[in-house]
Amino acid sequence: MTGIGDVRAAAARIGGHVLRTPVVEVAPGVLFKLECLQHSGSFKVRGAFNRILSAEVPGSGVIAASGGNHGLAVAYAARALGIRAEIFVPEVASPVKVAGLRALGAEITQIGSIYSEAAEAAAKRAAETGALRVHAYDQAEVVAGQGTVGLELMEQTGGVDTILVAVGGGGLAAGVTIGAGAGAGGVRIVAVEPERIPTLHAALEAGRPVPVEVAGVAADALGATRLGDLAFGILSTAAVTSVLVGDEAIVEARHTLWERHRVATEHAGATAYAALLAGAYVPAPGERVAAVVCGSNTDPATLPRQGSAA
Amino acid sequence: MTGIGDVRAAAARIGGHVLRTPVVEVAPGVLFKLECLQHSGSFKVRGAFNRILSAEVPGSGVIAASGGNHGLAVAYAARALGIRAEIFVPEVASPVKVAGLRALGAEITQIGSIYSEAAEAAAKRAAETGALRVHAYDQAEVVAGQGTVGLELMEQTGGVDTILVAVGGGGLAAGVTIGAGAGAGGVRIVAVEPERIPTLHAALEAGRPVPVEVAGVAADALGATRLGDLAFGILSTAAVTSVLVGDEAIVEARHTLWERHRVATEHAGATAYAALLAGAYVPAPGERVAAVVCGSNTDPATLPRQGSAA
Repeated sequence: MTGIGDVRAAAARIGGHVLRTPVVEVAPGVLFKLECLQHSGSFKVRGAFNRILSAEVPGSGVIAASGGNHGLAVAYAARALGIRAEIFVPEVASPVKVAGLRALGAEITQIGSIYSEAAEAAAKRAAETGALRVHAYDQAEVVAGQGTVGLELMEQTGGVDTILVAVGGGGLAAGVTIGAGAGAGGVRIVAVEPERIPTLHAALEAGRPVPVEVAGVAADALGATRLGDLAFGILSTAAVTSVLVGDEAIVEARHTLWERHRVATEHAGATAYAALLAGAYVPAPGERVAAVVCGSNTDPATLPRQGSAA
Repeated sequence: MTGIGDVRAAAARIGGHVLRTPVVEVAPGVLFKLECLQHSGSFKVRGAFNRILSAEVPGSGVIAASGGNHGLAVAYAARALGIRAEIFVPEVASPVKVAGLRALGAEITQIGSIYSEAAEAAAKRAAETGALRVHAYDQAEVVAGQGTVGLELMEQTGGVDTILVAVGGGGLAAGVTIGAGAGAGGVRIVAVEPERIPTLHAALEAGRPVPVEVAGVAADALGATRLGDLAFGILSTAAVTSVLVGDEAIVEARHTLWERHRVATEHAGATAYAALLAGAYVPAPGERVAAVVCGSNTDPATLPRQGSAA
């Protein structure tokens, strides 16, 4: 299983390529890890760089399936490293995101009506070309790369009691659990997921990752159909508390992050903070809590509440 | 003259009320001080709190003239401290900003067709009521409060070689010059102003602050008609380099801050970085440079370039 040594190795490997994103204490004991300022607009570049830099990359380059943050991250990392990137996206992918991928120099294949069809096509293509596959969450190097968020956070803050982190496929939450040294009297991890994409809740109930329906405001970035196997092994432990938040709470948290704190984030990026704001997780008096704000690939016109003052 | 002791005293005085805004190193040797994340959306709360907390505030409260960031800051500080705030704004002030002031609980008087008429009316009102006047830049407590940006920046970074900071009335630039310990082999200050609001250039040329025309994209926040007297005494020294940037460079810097770095800022807040991006200030090899991104009271819909990918 991925351990703290893997996260430390990842930090050394990717350090020159990713930002050490800042932490701000917005109220006594309430901190944000501003991973929304990361290159490519999300934490996903950490895992992408760690996966790519851990491997021998063939001439056919790297390949991934994603119409969202993962695709942007792989395209960003490939461009930075001067290697080819093929990104498979479903035909329904937003033209804006496809244009963003293209602007990063990736070769785009639009195929299939849903994500899983694009993913199958990418797997087939990888088998033909030998390109290095970069998974969105369920690869050890990806989990270790995302874990550098937790490692940094603990270094930057001198330690917190609790870290709130969003869950989709679970790569970030699992990585942070390892990287922050959770368990055995260490930091507590609160894994926050939308009620409408309860991959971790469903997995904990079933005793293994199982498919869930994917819906709601955060589906574009947290919309994994099942938790990763690696994430399940890490998140199904006593150090991790699993909580759900409704779409209304996520929407409210995103507006609040902009209006009160001037932090621009997508719905998925506001999900961890939503648990705190809506009271799904209530810290004890004096408890120091950090929420990971993990992505900002969003239309900024929608940050303020409709009709509100700028 | 304001000294480092005044800035240290200000830091102690306002520490529980303002954020220690984060610093991020976005490329080797290029740092941003993210004062755009500050309460009320700009650095102005630092000076406002320091001015108010340094005085005996009468029952009539505090009073200021401003339709912009200074007004929002004074209203924010007054609300936090539970005191009255009267803000005088010209009749042409944006309804959105007036609504923002009102939401903070300030009593608003809209009077005069231009800012200076509102300022005169505020002065007259203050003479009648005895309310504590909080100036936007030309008061020692205000300069010392803004100086905490420089003090923090040096503490957070372990020191940089150069700080780029925008100039309007000059309160922030002057404060940072003192707070960062510029001069005598210390950090270099690059005072950046829009070509269309050259208050410092004009003052340096004339040997004293003189009125200038106010125009261009940053006029809403850097549009002082003359440099403050206190700022002139501090900025007209060898430790400060004065550079101008055009509106195009400011617009470009603001879009780049969003698109490449996911930092949401107003034009004034992008002005310091514009000098670096456009080459108005060119660091030596190995020089560590920090740009103060000083405000975010903006319509986020205008952050991306028109027609660009989100």
